[in-house]
Amino acid sequence: MTIAPTATGPHVLRRINATAVLDALRSTDGMTARVAALVAATGLSRPAVSRALAALADVGAVEFLVTEDNGVGRPAQRARFRAECGHVAGIDLGPHKLLVTLADLAGTVCAERRVATPYGVAGPEAAGLLRTALAEVAADAGLEPTALWAVTVGTPGVVDVERGEVVLAPSIPGWAGLPLLAELRDWLGCPVLVENDVNLAVAAERWRGPAEDNLLYVHWGERIGSGIVIDGKPHRGASSAAGELGFVDLATPLDEEPAPVVEGLGPFERLVGARAILALATERCTGPLRETLRSSGDVAVLFEAAAIGDEEAVSVVRTVARRFARGLATHLLALDPECVVVGGGVSGAGDVLFDAVRTELARMLLTPVELRISALREKGVVLGAIRMSLDTAEQRLAGML
Amino acid sequence: MTIAPTATGPHVLRRINATAVLDALRSTDGMTARVAALVAATGLSRPAVSRALAALADVGAVEFLVTEDNGVGRPAQRARFRAECGHVAGIDLGPHKLLVTLADLAGTVCAERRVATPYGVAGPEAAGLLRTALAEVAADAGLEPTALWAVTVGTPGVVDVERGEVVLAPSIPGWAGLPLLAELRDWLGCPVLVENDVNLAVAAERWRGPAEDNLLYVHWGERIGSGIVIDGKPHRGASSAAGELGFVDLATPLDEEPAPVVEGLGPFERLVGARAILALATERCTGPLRETLRSSGDVAVLFEAAAIGDEEAVSVVRTVARRFARGLATHLLALDPECVVVGGGVSGAGDVLFDAVRTELARMLLTPVELRISALREKGVVLGAIRMSLDTAEQRLAGML
Repeated sequence: MTIAPTATGPHVLRRINATAVLDALRSTDGMTARVAALVAATGLSRPAVSRALAALADVGAVEFLVTEDNGVGRPAQRARFRAECGHVAGIDLGPHKLLVTLADLAGTVCAERRVATPYGVAGPEAAGLLRTALAEVAADAGLEPTALWAVTVGTPGVVDVERGEVVLAPSIPGWAGLPLLAELRDWLGCPVLVENDVNLAVAAERWRGPAEDNLLYVHWGERIGSGIVIDGKPHRGASSAAGELGFVDLATPLDEEPAPVVEGLGPFERLVGARAILALATERCTGPLRETLRSSGDVAVLFEAAAIGDEEAVSVVRTVARRFARGLATHLLALDPECVVVGGGVSGAGDVLFDAVRTELARMLLTPVELRISALREKGVVLGAIRMSLDTAEQRLAGML
Repeated sequence: MTIAPTATGPHVLRRINATAVLDALRSTDGMTARVAALVAATGLSRPAVSRALAALADVGAVEFLVTEDNGVGRPAQRARFRAECGHVAGIDLGPHKLLVTLADLAGTVCAERRVATPYGVAGPEAAGLLRTALAEVAADAGLEPTALWAVTVGTPGVVDVERGEVVLAPSIPGWAGLPLLAELRDWLGCPVLVENDVNLAVAAERWRGPAEDNLLYVHWGERIGSGIVIDGKPHRGASSAAGELGFVDLATPLDEEPAPVVEGLGPFERLVGARAILALATERCTGPLRETLRSSGDVAVLFEAAAIGDEEAVSVVRTVARRFARGLATHLLALDPECVVVGGGVSGAGDVLFDAVRTELARMLLTPVELRISALREKGVVLGAIRMSLDTAEQRLAGML
């Protein structure tokens, strides 16, 4: 086997060393460290670390700070990772809303904007709204949108990540293909990635939350979907369609013909998604609670009423918990994960709902499973999108060395 | 890092070479090859191959055959793998039957015995039956049972493979712990492994059938369970309880409290396992068909009647197909495998049943999936058990070199 000349030599070694030094620097407190600490952390020689820092400073990724002389010797020089040398964006493009977030290369969020959109808007109109929102958050951060290093769009549906396309999005008419991606790529001139929103929420969970190697993440909002992590890696399935909890059908009576799967919400989403919960609560509750549910259109009203002991609300919550547990149990019986993390709007209900879900689940499973509410709530998708953008930005930075 | 002296040196090299030569020999037609062919297949030198063959001959794993001189030169010597130098057993220990199979080190089955057992017998009585059956198959093969190199027992339930114990077997009272394993180990003095029967059927499918890297194997008999292969590896789950399709509950009406999971068959097994199908057919069919179902107690009668167009039978088969598809769909929505392979007794029904299952599934899934009937039928578990025993036997052979 011959080794390609580009894959070896002092140039490649320098890049490998610089990447090692950068990784060590970024994992220190304040992303600032003395040369001696980087020598210890990387195992490289002092001259090698100094050369790597100089290369990083050349591309603007590192600056040198001089510490006050404490009287003992010469002032010590410290290197700082300039996280502000580049920025990435994460976008959560749902059927009802657009959430745009900007972060620096350390993943620190520097600007954020939320826009309500007409249901399912995905074409030129959405591209316009997205362009405006992106320009606004960039301005907040003192940047041109074209200065971004990478953008990741999280969307419902089955996504071909390699080709950067939405293959299938049954819950949103007209979404497949997602024409606004091409427009975004033309405008920004940087990589524009696309990924299933639930997969991004899973990535965020593993980035910012406790990181079980075998977990099921469930998004529970108007839509219901799940992301699977097995042995630390996302499990996408043969057609990128694993974890489609929203299409489990519990509502069709046993021997009746289930409605064929078409565009629109799946059977489990129609049974126990946020809108279905609101409809059930409005139907079963009476008096002022019903009025508040109707006028606010907010399912949180139900959970607040249940939390203070309203009997009608408690009864509806119990029904919702049982229905949700029955669907979730089918996934758990298949997968047997260490842990279930629930995110999305309904996860905000808290333990008044989830204690009931846990009780129901225990009856349906052979082995116990931990169920936890995501600490990221509705920020999971954008944070995961930022994480994916950062991975691309890091490749760009390595390429500059 | 220091390298342990036992892990290197000429002795280890000889063992590695001998294993390479053995692998090459076993993968040739008739497991017989000339030295020149083994030199070509392994990349080793001719003296190294000759030394390896001599070492294998010393332990009885290889013999030399002399080909007739064809007049052109000296007679060519060929080496043959003596698959008969060792034997292993595979056992399928179900709640109703015991299937014991013996194979040589090439995996060729040389004797086999099937014993009906009283339901769920797992203690001293089963140990007696098993001892008798094993002694009989060994005698058929001209062996003492204590001459076996390895034995693998396939059983229902959740198995701790590392510790060689049955942790949980809800479908069979008294099965957990499986006391006959200890007795078997004392008697035979060779490794006695234990594994979940469905996982063994999956291993057999990958050994003897087409080998998709992402498949769901479903055992459909009186019990229903599944084994999952992801990226070529079995997925067992955090508590070794993945793939418990038999415990999916479709029968409990939506808002009723499901019965708690206890020992006994799971809800999906009670709905559409072989015994449930027989009960449904006996209830819904009339006339001579009903009588034959009742007297034979064999669900195959139903499928044969449906195959020749009996309207009542066709209607029952359609109901069974829909119920089975609804349960299976919940696993497929979670896992999205390339392919589903169905084995177990009900898989013998053939396309009269499975064409209906395929039609129903297509309505319930977002992406198509191939569904195929296992070619191994009820032999899957014992073949998988033999495969697992062979893996252990190969370690023993390597240790002898």
